[in-house]
Amino acid sequence: MSRTGRRPGAPGTRDAILVATRRRFATRGYEATSLRSIASEAGVDPALLIHYFKTKQGLFLAAMEPPFPPLVLSGDLRSLSRREAAEMLVRRYLAAVDSDEGRNAILALVRSAVSNEQAATLLRESHANELARSVRELTGDGDGEMKAALVAAQLIGIAMLRHVVGVDRLARGDPEKIVATAAPMIEACFH
Amino acid sequence: MSRTGRRPGAPGTRDAILVATRRRFATRGYEATSLRSIASEAGVDPALLIHYFKTKQGLFLAAMEPPFPPLVLSGDLRSLSRREAAEMLVRRYLAAVDSDEGRNAILALVRSAVSNEQAATLLRESHANELARSVRELTGDGDGEMKAALVAAQLIGIAMLRHVVGVDRLARGDPEKIVATAAPMIEACFH
Repeated sequence: MSRTGRRPGAPGTRDAILVATRRRFATRGYEATSLRSIASEAGVDPALLIHYFKTKQGLFLAAMEPPFPPLVLSGDLRSLSRREAAEMLVRRYLAAVDSDEGRNAILALVRSAVSNEQAATLLRESHANELARSVRELTGDGDGEMKAALVAAQLIGIAMLRHVVGVDRLARGDPEKIVATAAPMIEACFH
Repeated sequence: MSRTGRRPGAPGTRDAILVATRRRFATRGYEATSLRSIASEAGVDPALLIHYFKTKQGLFLAAMEPPFPPLVLSGDLRSLSRREAAEMLVRRYLAAVDSDEGRNAILALVRSAVSNEQAATLLRESHANELARSVRELTGDGDGEMKAALVAAQLIGIAMLRHVVGVDRLARGDPEKIVATAAPMIEACFH
């Protein structure tokens, strides 16, 4: 029995650790975050983190894994008009990064990516490249790959200025206003 | 006479310090960079950094100050067609962030902004907001402010994926190919 009262295997313990992990990495980034501080925030014994995730990297990868399922972002867009598809894509992306979990995940990724190579790889592979892949069928042939990368750049740029840098117009902007203004830009990449 | 052979006031000493500063902050970010390591890279005595810039923050601010003069980015665009203006804006922005100095400056800003409040403010005020202001007269009335912020988000997103995250299509992309693909997106914001 751990001194904090949560036992291995207690329902929700693993999830509580992952939530605390995203929150700590979002605040301080990978390098500056200790396993002890995560355990303390989750209210568990530090040994439990090792029990579940083996290493700090293992914990980081597990915490970053699910929050942006790109297929959900681009699913069912093909039946829509180009404008409607662009609006829906921006709307879903904003909903993902505006949720507590999504916001912590993107903050954690960006904060960690600048000091940790594995986090940078994760930001590139699981987020930026996945985003690009998820819109690939909407961007057509020819320049489709470049267009998809630029759509990803637009969405990630919005998330950066909204949640990391805090540019007023985007940080406090009504999501539907952002959707309406960004959709024509993204639509320009759809065939 | 400093032991490294550069004297205060020697021509180019101050510039050499600023170049070394941008390079060190670009590699390690603000918090992890010591004045000693900057002095060593610049080949000067650490006391010279204090002589010129007083504090680490003073040095950081001086090093970040000039590299993206936004007026240069948006100057003389009004006489062009919307498409040409958008192309020229992207072309100039890429030229700025692709130069050694510009690339180090944007890396230093992003790397430092995640761990240092003053760097985050600088990234917001001198870069993102300046970018938005610089295209403000091209984005028209009504939603102009939001459009300008989204143009800034697009450009900064490109710089992030090209130089910080390293998304292949953008990191290795020919600048003119990026210009041609991004211009219609940005043009959608011009009145």
